[in-house]
Amino acid sequence: MTTIAPHDPAARELFDEMARWPIYDPHSHIDAHRPAARNLDEVLGYHYYTELAHSAGMPAAKVAPELSPAVRVRNLAENLHSLDNTIQYSWLIEIARTFHGFADDRITPDNIGTLYDRADHSQDGAAWDQKVWDRTNLEAIFLTNDFDDPLDGWDTRRYVPCLRTDDLVLKLHEPSTVERLRRSTGLDVQDYATLREAIGVLFGRFVAKGARACAISLPPDFVPHKGTPLRGVTPVRRALHQMDLRPDEHDEIRKVVFWTIAEFCAEFRLPFDLMIGPIRNVYPAGVAGGRDLFDRRVSLHDYRELFNHFSGVTFPVSTLSPDAGPELVAYSWIFPNVVPLGHWWYSNIPAYIADDLRARLQAVPKSKVVGYYSDAYKLEFVLPKFNMFRRVLAETLAAECLRGQGWSADRALELAKMVLIDNPRRVFRREA
Amino acid sequence: MTTIAPHDPAARELFDEMARWPIYDPHSHIDAHRPAARNLDEVLGYHYYTELAHSAGMPAAKVAPELSPAVRVRNLAENLHSLDNTIQYSWLIEIARTFHGFADDRITPDNIGTLYDRADHSQDGAAWDQKVWDRTNLEAIFLTNDFDDPLDGWDTRRYVPCLRTDDLVLKLHEPSTVERLRRSTGLDVQDYATLREAIGVLFGRFVAKGARACAISLPPDFVPHKGTPLRGVTPVRRALHQMDLRPDEHDEIRKVVFWTIAEFCAEFRLPFDLMIGPIRNVYPAGVAGGRDLFDRRVSLHDYRELFNHFSGVTFPVSTLSPDAGPELVAYSWIFPNVVPLGHWWYSNIPAYIADDLRARLQAVPKSKVVGYYSDAYKLEFVLPKFNMFRRVLAETLAAECLRGQGWSADRALELAKMVLIDNPRRVFRREA
Amino acid sequence: MTTIAPHDPAARELFDEMARWPIYDPHSHIDAHRPAARNLDEVLGYHYYTELAHSAGMPAAKVAPELSPAVRVRNLAENLHSLDNTIQYSWLIEIARTFHGFADDRITPDNIGTLYDRADHSQDGAAWDQKVWDRTNLEAIFLTNDFDDPLDGWDTRRYVPCLRTDDLVLKLHEPSTVERLRRSTGLDVQDYATLREAIGVLFGRFVAKGARACAISLPPDFVPHKGTPLRGVTPVRRALHQMDLRPDEHDEIRKVVFWTIAEFCAEFRLPFDLMIGPIRNVYPAGVAGGRDLFDRRVSLHDYRELFNHFSGVTFPVSTLSPDAGPELVAYSWIFPNVVPLGHWWYSNIPAYIADDLRARLQAVPKSKVVGYYSDAYKLEFVLPKFNMFRRVLAETLAAECLRGQGWSADRALELAKMVLIDNPRRVFRREA
Repeated sequence: MTTIAPHDPAARELFDEMARWPIYDPHSHIDAHRPAARNLDEVLGYHYYTELAHSAGMPAAKVAPELSPAVRVRNLAENLHSLDNTIQYSWLIEIARTFHGFADDRITPDNIGTLYDRADHSQDGAAWDQKVWDRTNLEAIFLTNDFDDPLDGWDTRRYVPCLRTDDLVLKLHEPSTVERLRRSTGLDVQDYATLREAIGVLFGRFVAKGARACAISLPPDFVPHKGTPLRGVTPVRRALHQMDLRPDEHDEIRKVVFWTIAEFCAEFRLPFDLMIGPIRNVYPAGVAGGRDLFDRRVSLHDYRELFNHFSGVTFPVSTLSPDAGPELVAYSWIFPNVVPLGHWWYSNIPAYIADDLRARLQAVPKSKVVGYYSDAYKLEFVLPKFNMFRRVLAETLAAECLRGQGWSADRALELAKMVLIDNPRRVFRREA
Repeated sequence: MTTIAPHDPAARELFDEMARWPIYDPHSHIDAHRPAARNLDEVLGYHYYTELAHSAGMPAAKVAPELSPAVRVRNLAENLHSLDNTIQYSWLIEIARTFHGFADDRITPDNIGTLYDRADHSQDGAAWDQKVWDRTNLEAIFLTNDFDDPLDGWDTRRYVPCLRTDDLVLKLHEPSTVERLRRSTGLDVQDYATLREAIGVLFGRFVAKGARACAISLPPDFVPHKGTPLRGVTPVRRALHQMDLRPDEHDEIRKVVFWTIAEFCAEFRLPFDLMIGPIRNVYPAGVAGGRDLFDRRVSLHDYRELFNHFSGVTFPVSTLSPDAGPELVAYSWIFPNVVPLGHWWYSNIPAYIADDLRARLQAVPKSKVVGYYSDAYKLEFVLPKFNMFRRVLAETLAAECLRGQGWSADRALELAKMVLIDNPRRVFRREA
Repeated sequence: MTTIAPHDPAARELFDEMARWPIYDPHSHIDAHRPAARNLDEVLGYHYYTELAHSAGMPAAKVAPELSPAVRVRNLAENLHSLDNTIQYSWLIEIARTFHGFADDRITPDNIGTLYDRADHSQDGAAWDQKVWDRTNLEAIFLTNDFDDPLDGWDTRRYVPCLRTDDLVLKLHEPSTVERLRRSTGLDVQDYATLREAIGVLFGRFVAKGARACAISLPPDFVPHKGTPLRGVTPVRRALHQMDLRPDEHDEIRKVVFWTIAEFCAEFRLPFDLMIGPIRNVYPAGVAGGRDLFDRRVSLHDYRELFNHFSGVTFPVSTLSPDAGPELVAYSWIFPNVVPLGHWWYSNIPAYIADDLRARLQAVPKSKVVGYYSDAYKLEFVLPKFNMFRRVLAETLAAECLRGQGWSADRALELAKMVLIDNPRRVFRREA
């Protein structure tokens, strides 16, 4: 058996049915040009493994980019024992079993060589991508595309574009941002007016290419509000010309660009995924991808003006700090355009998923609960992550709905299907 | 069967016993002149249903006050399917089964007509109130009375008055407040001295009429402290004459009036219910009753001066943000006059009740845990809400006390009875 | 049977095995000269019982120091019934059964006399200490020593010294602090330079005597950062001479002394236990030890500079506010030198332990999870507190690892042993 099913028979029955369904994955970091891992290094290089091994004492140099893939993998294999308790390790085992015929309980320096060879698909190219896609039973997976991504060369109904706007909002003052913006739009961006025009061009291109969402990750101290155009114009112009900026000018720029993007989401009828909470580079000496953390003192109350103003924009929201979960339940319960979206990063472990999911299923209209996304960088991770969520969902439904409310299994599965498939399909559809 | 009993046999046994006990409900919004619902619109008009349906996409106009009750009910029935997963929906089904002989699993446009007819008690008046009262096995239920409520025309031992002081503290500057205060006390309220005198009159009247508590809901940014009389006198006078107020003056007024009310609670030996957390009108476009939310960044540490100063006043405390629950456990564990009171509003779902209740039963002296209140607007809701709590209580006792500590069922039931009945009776009694 | 084992058979099997292991207790307040309780008053005098009884209505005078031990015990016994639901009461029963042959279910005014007599070991001295040590199967227990403790007169491999630095950081301005510092170091501490020298002397002495940790408890508003030496020098000098200090000077002193201590932890390779959260004397009218609480608005993000700067210092961290637990999971997941340490005080009840432990086991490398410490003042408490933790650990492993992941019992026990024994041994070892 390649995945673990729930132990409780009622939950197992629900899980077994869900395991037959296709997966609709509304947020990932997949590269559509290289979706599956060509070798084990592309699996083990996932920041969860490098950061946990580093946290357990492995020097960052052991996974440095200049090392060969085989050496990096071997170095990690020597350190995996210290994290074989984690849920992230369980994804790894499930990948090894499902995709590479691995049969042992743990990955060790002794069996890593064989596993490395079995996971070598450097010669298989797109055929391997297709194999992983089929085995995963993927229906569609959303990407996270830089604003200057040409979006060419793949089937955008399967690998669905999503416009990531972090750079525009948070790094407008960096020379490369405006340079990329000018190049990708062909516009001579010099001030707020031309910036706005350029952003409109980006939205037009993304939508024409089949984008179904706009997305951004925001630090906990960000408070969106509708600035006066006059206040924002000068700082934006100064940023576009790399002039020195005061902290309040940086903040004004973030606000005015963010609000402008929300306006385009309204105009183009794109859901705007808000990933709220990360602070970048809290631990600069960490491994790549393992440097960001958060400050738990954050509240969705800071987003009230946004949610009220853009009543026509759907905001699928993920919050990073696990203890902020109940607030998202309350805001989704009241605001029609706030939708709880999956379980993110530091909140993406069964302990926190179970608590949040139970509350969402008890208090948010079922048509609004968007169950899960993989956040994956390689296709292989989609299945074990979704299986983790499907286990928690099955156990929650068995406890709360079957035993707790006397529901039939069919009624519970109807709810599961909404949460897993129907809702993401509907929330992220774009009507003509 | 009209209510769902716990699936676990040990919990079911405890629940079955609790279900035979009378209900003592220390907080509601019942109108003693019209306690039970005369028709289904008065049940479905509860903000939980209108706000959840609105959150799921139903336009607010579908439940506008100018529509007829039958049309509002039909409109809601067409939208209930999207929230049939929620715990609030389960209350509705239990009401329909218990009080209206409903036998289906869900309320739909197909069966709503029959249910509407069965729930029509417009001709039955007080007889229906009594029937619901008896079926619920109510012993007493607390009201939430405006300060100018004449408190006439009902048995105040059953429908127990409670002085709500929100308007005095938070809306003193509004012309209607001072107008109502002058009219209801017959005093020419013009300054702090006469305001204080008037509040004393209100307390005297309420206590004479059998009031057992004073209550207030407070926003998360409110920090009570004993102001100097001199500082508060001028802003209060300005408020009473509707003069323009600065934000710091508003804050000073809230503080001085709140503190004055706490002084009268001490003098009249009334418990002072603190409902901490709501921010009003966060979502102005919401349906009536569905516009308030909260900011989770709140701490009981802000109330330390109050709890210390009024050591003779009992403060039954409810907090709105679910993640603030553990702090209430700690403050109730230390302060003799802080009592954890029920599970409120956005915290009133089994997921959060279970977590809070387990902690309260493990760490707060049992004589201080006031289990539950219905917060109901119509009598029909008391039973399903209390049954929800009794289920969670039974499951918690079965897991933690029977299986976890080896207690007998009798010992667990003794604790349950304190939490459900003995404690609210004692905390809210008034000795001569 | 003197302790309660888990009801679930799989958990019970794990627990029964753990119950045979020695206990390694990395944080307590034991007095090495009088480790076990000489009489029942020294057990019942634990602040948990006096504060809970006081919270339930017992006047503080009933446990005043001027009363005789027998009277204090009898007074408490009359009030224990109101807290016989709490987990703290269950420790008491387990102590009475394990160490004093108590056979009843509850401690009452009727049986307190017999129990008092049985618990009288005033004549047994060190023999009784040894008996409790053996019955507990203790391997080592850490103390919390004042900086001027001579550390003489006991086996420091069993009763391991730990340098408590609260007074130096938080009370440097009090005359007694500098007086004790001068006396214990023989240095004429007059300014920052001599203060630093004196702290170095303390570290040298503690390490020579076998200390394995430095520890401090910090209020929620403390934000460590590396001040400029110049800024701190003057306030420190003023504090050492008891001159008046502004709030910002107090804060500067806390920061510079704390940072200096962290530098010595680095130099002497001592782990630095951070106990984050308490605010002292929030409830001044409380009983001794029952006056401190917290403000839940605290974040480990405030500690980022410390964790980054002292990458060579291990920081075992306990947070006081239960809802801050998930943040500690995330920071331990990323920072190699941040280690989640036990479950502290207001977080030390099964409800919160279970939630935190489940998350730590799912997301923190297993080699970093330091399971538990007793925080005990008397040896008798070590066993029931550790048994409480071992029950939660057994139940968590049975649910999450055996049933949830299909692990063998041996693999689960291997993890349990790391968490309970191997990790504290390794984290707090000092290599030559």
